[in-house]
Amino acid sequence: MLGTGLIGLFYTMTLHGQRGRDRVSCVYSRDADRAQTFARKWGIKHAVTDMEEAVKHTSSDVVIIGLPNHLHEEAVQLCVEANKAVLCTKPLARTAAEAKRILNIVESSGIFAGYLEDLVYTPKTLKALESVRRGALGEILWTRSREAHSGPHSSWFWDVEQAGGGAIVDLGCHCIEIIRNFVGKDIRPVEVSCWADTLVHPIEAEDNSIALIRFENGAVGQFEVSWTFRGGMDLRDEVAGTEGTIWLNHFLRTGFEMFSSGAGGYVAEKAEQESGWLFPVGDEVHELGYTDMFTDMFNAMDEGREPMETIYDGYVVNAVIDACYRSAKSRKWEPVELEDWRGRTGVARIRGLKEMVDGLELVKRERLPNGEVKLILKDPGTGEVTQRVVEDD
Amino acid sequence: MLGTGLIGLFYTMTLHGQRGRDRVSCVYSRDADRAQTFARKWGIKHAVTDMEEAVKHTSSDVVIIGLPNHLHEEAVQLCVEANKAVLCTKPLARTAAEAKRILNIVESSGIFAGYLEDLVYTPKTLKALESVRRGALGEILWTRSREAHSGPHSSWFWDVEQAGGGAIVDLGCHCIEIIRNFVGKDIRPVEVSCWADTLVHPIEAEDNSIALIRFENGAVGQFEVSWTFRGGMDLRDEVAGTEGTIWLNHFLRTGFEMFSSGAGGYVAEKAEQESGWLFPVGDEVHELGYTDMFTDMFNAMDEGREPMETIYDGYVVNAVIDACYRSAKSRKWEPVELEDWRGRTGVARIRGLKEMVDGLELVKRERLPNGEVKLILKDPGTGEVTQRVVEDD
Amino acid sequence: MLGTGLIGLFYTMTLHGQRGRDRVSCVYSRDADRAQTFARKWGIKHAVTDMEEAVKHTSSDVVIIGLPNHLHEEAVQLCVEANKAVLCTKPLARTAAEAKRILNIVESSGIFAGYLEDLVYTPKTLKALESVRRGALGEILWTRSREAHSGPHSSWFWDVEQAGGGAIVDLGCHCIEIIRNFVGKDIRPVEVSCWADTLVHPIEAEDNSIALIRFENGAVGQFEVSWTFRGGMDLRDEVAGTEGTIWLNHFLRTGFEMFSSGAGGYVAEKAEQESGWLFPVGDEVHELGYTDMFTDMFNAMDEGREPMETIYDGYVVNAVIDACYRSAKSRKWEPVELEDWRGRTGVARIRGLKEMVDGLELVKRERLPNGEVKLILKDPGTGEVTQRVVEDD
Amino acid sequence: MLGTGLIGLFYTMTLHGQRGRDRVSCVYSRDADRAQTFARKWGIKHAVTDMEEAVKHTSSDVVIIGLPNHLHEEAVQLCVEANKAVLCTKPLARTAAEAKRILNIVESSGIFAGYLEDLVYTPKTLKALESVRRGALGEILWTRSREAHSGPHSSWFWDVEQAGGGAIVDLGCHCIEIIRNFVGKDIRPVEVSCWADTLVHPIEAEDNSIALIRFENGAVGQFEVSWTFRGGMDLRDEVAGTEGTIWLNHFLRTGFEMFSSGAGGYVAEKAEQESGWLFPVGDEVHELGYTDMFTDMFNAMDEGREPMETIYDGYVVNAVIDACYRSAKSRKWEPVELEDWRGRTGVARIRGLKEMVDGLELVKRERLPNGEVKLILKDPGTGEVTQRVVEDD
Repeated sequence: MLGTGLIGLFYTMTLHGQRGRDRVSCVYSRDADRAQTFARKWGIKHAVTDMEEAVKHTSSDVVIIGLPNHLHEEAVQLCVEANKAVLCTKPLARTAAEAKRILNIVESSGIFAGYLEDLVYTPKTLKALESVRRGALGEILWTRSREAHSGPHSSWFWDVEQAGGGAIVDLGCHCIEIIRNFVGKDIRPVEVSCWADTLVHPIEAEDNSIALIRFENGAVGQFEVSWTFRGGMDLRDEVAGTEGTIWLNHFLRTGFEMFSSGAGGYVAEKAEQESGWLFPVGDEVHELGYTDMFTDMFNAMDEGREPMETIYDGYVVNAVIDACYRSAKSRKWEPVELEDWRGRTGVARIRGLKEMVDGLELVKRERLPNGEVKLILKDPGTGEVTQRVVEDD
Repeated sequence: MLGTGLIGLFYTMTLHGQRGRDRVSCVYSRDADRAQTFARKWGIKHAVTDMEEAVKHTSSDVVIIGLPNHLHEEAVQLCVEANKAVLCTKPLARTAAEAKRILNIVESSGIFAGYLEDLVYTPKTLKALESVRRGALGEILWTRSREAHSGPHSSWFWDVEQAGGGAIVDLGCHCIEIIRNFVGKDIRPVEVSCWADTLVHPIEAEDNSIALIRFENGAVGQFEVSWTFRGGMDLRDEVAGTEGTIWLNHFLRTGFEMFSSGAGGYVAEKAEQESGWLFPVGDEVHELGYTDMFTDMFNAMDEGREPMETIYDGYVVNAVIDACYRSAKSRKWEPVELEDWRGRTGVARIRGLKEMVDGLELVKRERLPNGEVKLILKDPGTGEVTQRVVEDD
Repeated sequence: MLGTGLIGLFYTMTLHGQRGRDRVSCVYSRDADRAQTFARKWGIKHAVTDMEEAVKHTSSDVVIIGLPNHLHEEAVQLCVEANKAVLCTKPLARTAAEAKRILNIVESSGIFAGYLEDLVYTPKTLKALESVRRGALGEILWTRSREAHSGPHSSWFWDVEQAGGGAIVDLGCHCIEIIRNFVGKDIRPVEVSCWADTLVHPIEAEDNSIALIRFENGAVGQFEVSWTFRGGMDLRDEVAGTEGTIWLNHFLRTGFEMFSSGAGGYVAEKAEQESGWLFPVGDEVHELGYTDMFTDMFNAMDEGREPMETIYDGYVVNAVIDACYRSAKSRKWEPVELEDWRGRTGVARIRGLKEMVDGLELVKRERLPNGEVKLILKDPGTGEVTQRVVEDD
Repeated sequence: MLGTGLIGLFYTMTLHGQRGRDRVSCVYSRDADRAQTFARKWGIKHAVTDMEEAVKHTSSDVVIIGLPNHLHEEAVQLCVEANKAVLCTKPLARTAAEAKRILNIVESSGIFAGYLEDLVYTPKTLKALESVRRGALGEILWTRSREAHSGPHSSWFWDVEQAGGGAIVDLGCHCIEIIRNFVGKDIRPVEVSCWADTLVHPIEAEDNSIALIRFENGAVGQFEVSWTFRGGMDLRDEVAGTEGTIWLNHFLRTGFEMFSSGAGGYVAEKAEQESGWLFPVGDEVHELGYTDMFTDMFNAMDEGREPMETIYDGYVVNAVIDACYRSAKSRKWEPVELEDWRGRTGVARIRGLKEMVDGLELVKRERLPNGEVKLILKDPGTGEVTQRVVEDD
């Protein structure tokens, strides 16, 4: 385990929680105190302050990277040298170029590697994706992914140099991969229109951003990220298809509601308040996808298959992020530059409604209170729109 | 009452509902049958098929326009000639130019006039606006307004010529005015970035659109409109400010939940289904703002003041819509062209967090579980970001 | 308007809100200052301190009683003497005996009279009742009505002598009538099992109570009332029938959610807090049923019909409350004593599932994931329960 | 693993899900086919049709009982004889007498034993219990636990002889233990008032029941169980304390909402419908508490401590159930007969509000919109209630 920050903590909580058979055997932090405190707390045998030593440590089969973004490339390089399997936290890199270099060294070395994008693995998302794949929503038209809170805990994330950006890099990377999963990871993200601004915090990076991602088949992804949200952590996804709708709420409204006068002190993590109406989450590491993510990663290793989220996916996400920054600057749609596209190409446009009634195109069908059905029809020649009420349909 | 379609029906239901003192005395429809049926059903004395006759009818003090968009200008012209007060449904016109002509003739004539934008008047919106004005949310950073359903009931609305556009004109007009009210109607909408596409229905107009509106002070409005939504009518607004958040749900989740096996037949208007889980609204005309809208309009007339929503507001909305269509085409941000701007100018940018701690800029303040407070601080000279934990704050 | 307390205020807000044609012309309070302040605030012409003078005042057609419970009988007596229509607030009286005397004098005099049970008239309840009447829920099996807050505003309500009881009299009266409406007002409430206790406040009356009401057809009503609830005002109803379910939330979760740091001061009535997550209601008097209640009352007067809620209903409610107090004391089921029952008698028991399959009674039918149908069947002779999976059904 | 029904399936899914280190090594079913199919599906080595053989099988350390209720005693007896640790599903037995015999043989043998009451272990419940223990709700006054669906899947559960009862035995056992956990497992349940009826299904056992449980300190538990609920599975808990409120929703409203036209076929387990609005649960075995339950059980074994839910708890639950059946018959409160009570005795009554202001008892304190505070006060001598408005408090 490289890193003892919030993400290293979540990863370790997940692996050491419940009755898992996978354990952290060695932890690395630049700071000896932090490394040792962390190791003691979680019953980890080895605590080291040298990254290379940690990577090559004989006690472990897999290296998990939970470091600041600017250190990912170096850490992956060490894993390749040590011929160790590697799982890298999100975002993969600061730029698509950096991500591509990581992808290249990993693939040329042949080590097992996975991309730790937890929010794609939340139990709700996994079940929703299954429904989408079975066709319960028809063709996917639009996916909104929103991730907003009051800003990161660690100081390095507020420094654009180390982080590679602001809320887009921190939160948008989740949203982009959630959107890709719902739209279809084999559908190419073609171009991006993005707004970004620094509205509240005195920083260089953006603390708010909204972007649209247009896919080759016409589907649109929309992300909203913010480091200035008030009221806790807002994690919501919405998906609209030709046959249905999905709304997921991962944090503030999950069926756990509590009012407290404030008696008893500290109540819930990340809540802005300790009294009044509070909305805790049952089992945070499970609800945020960490459990299912590591299950997939380790099972994939054991079974010799690729995990659901790969280093290649991390690269695609970085390419979309790059296009977002270009668009925010140029103030127009910018292409997503993917020199290495492995999905489908030439994908047909979303089919939509293509039904004819007596030589007229069906625009809409609507059941009326009296049981009759109203058809709105268009003459394909003249373009004239008419309506017709029929007994049954 | 000019028009006997869905909007004329809602207006009449509102006026004749409860124990109101204002009644419809004369109804106009091109079609004699429709006019008479409507008049009989609602106890209206006069039913006419000549618009001019309706406008000039001595039985009424006010003309309410509930006609297709392309007839608004002509109807307002008749009101001006008849020197009658006029209330015009939304959108005011098909283009800002048309809206400006309507504004000019109304203002030069001196008649009382109001813009029937009901969704700004929903009881929830009115109370939310009051909280925003009192400062409960601090400075407004972002407003999302979403309006989505399966498409309009009337055939004319599917014809781009008569309607002036698609989902943007039909639904976006509501969203834009909701956004303006939350951000502040005196803050100038500066520019727009808009995506629009026809994904499902075989029509010329857009059936889906998403747009961002940037205001002079940096605040951003976001609208999402769709004629392809599955599951009923999705009417939601979200507002984020420096001090708080508001989430409004006007239709599908209002505290009325019902499961039915389908026994008993027709259950709820606009629901896609008659069985399964259904989400009716208590009193639709009240929840959608019609009651409070007419109360404001008639009280304004009685008190000799302007209503909350004026013809000028309708013009601003059309100007934003025009910019949306330009942006959807040019694929970049487009300025909102307002030759007649009556709000504030030179408005300062949102203030954000501007607190200094020992000569360092405060980036974030966070209370830790143990009661201590963590400060993230930035050196304004070097840009270096550090953190500090203090006992209390 | 007799009374200037919270209920007199709500009634006046309702009548003078929107564009109603009914106005309060004369207000009575024992206290001259209160009467005059109230009159000034609401534009009421006459303010008097003599109840008889108020009742007989020539400016009004109807007397509305918004007085403490122990004064209702006297006030109704005055209306009868003045031959004035009367609308009496809930509960009608402190006991069934008192309620019966009120009923008798009203009916023998022939004046128009109504029972102001507002929560039966909430827009959601009216629409839900319509669905129930149409059969969307099949036969009603169970209704839960819950009303809980932190206790009444007025001091007289904490005095068991003036109020006639505690939370049961204050809140249970609403619940009982809501339950009766869902089960069917013509179905006789047969007996009651009730628990009541004083858990928190230093008072004689109960501050918490739960009761079950058994109806002649086997349906059960359940009420939960509390003067010790934390978090605002909890008003919820749940209905279960053989074909469906209804859940109504009238106050804390109605689609209006707000987080505030506390900036801007006072935010919402009855909220326990001014910061954190708050759940305001859009238009309180409308959502709580006052608007539709007065519309029904005045329309009933105009149309010479009975209102939906009559003095007789108030009497039945008091009879159920009496049985609750007897049961809370005897600690067993107690009959509801109704010397004057005007509904149906000898009503058959709820029919339930009565389907035979090959001579066996159908216990349950369940669709399996693979599309097959599983039947659970009982031999009516031996009582043996078996299961069978069939292709289709 | 004894039993291959729904509960055996859930237990095995839990143990074999994720990356757990505990596996099922031998499965027993009366029916050889079912045993072998189950073993194949879940990769279990041994499948046997002799219960004794299964219990004594050398491949396992722990026996998990997932059998019909009437077979629990026999199975536990076998475990004692084999000196094997045993985990028994809920309810422990059909009656308190049977439960007591099980408790006795387990305790005299000294084997490790646990009571598999999963719903006490849901992540939401565990976190809520932690908040309650920390005092966030003050003293607990009332707990409502509601469990309702359309009836069990297995035919044996519809037979009162094998099951020991109906919905009370099936669902009430969960509710009772949830209530005990919130009120405090060391607080004695003193007496019970219960209604039970068979309203819909043609069976001997009750298909609906509501009960109140009074605890020694005055707190009240309320359970509602039903085999006739329409709309899915309704699992909700509500807790009210002097300082706060908790609402838990475990199934139908957990932040996962989906509308489908029905395209794509089968969508969600236990949903009544395959189209319309559906409310799936993310990870069912985790959300229903199975994961945390087995973690606690196996960790307790490893650590040589008692699990959170013991066989003794199962016995207390059966004693409360017995009192429910007696009360449903006698139609009055019935004592809970616990010959073996291990909690506290002579517990003081809930304290409530005990504050004096100038020699008067404080009844209520309420902050007014203008910032002033209204006190309602009672003279402890005369009982007179008065109110007083003070500047601050």
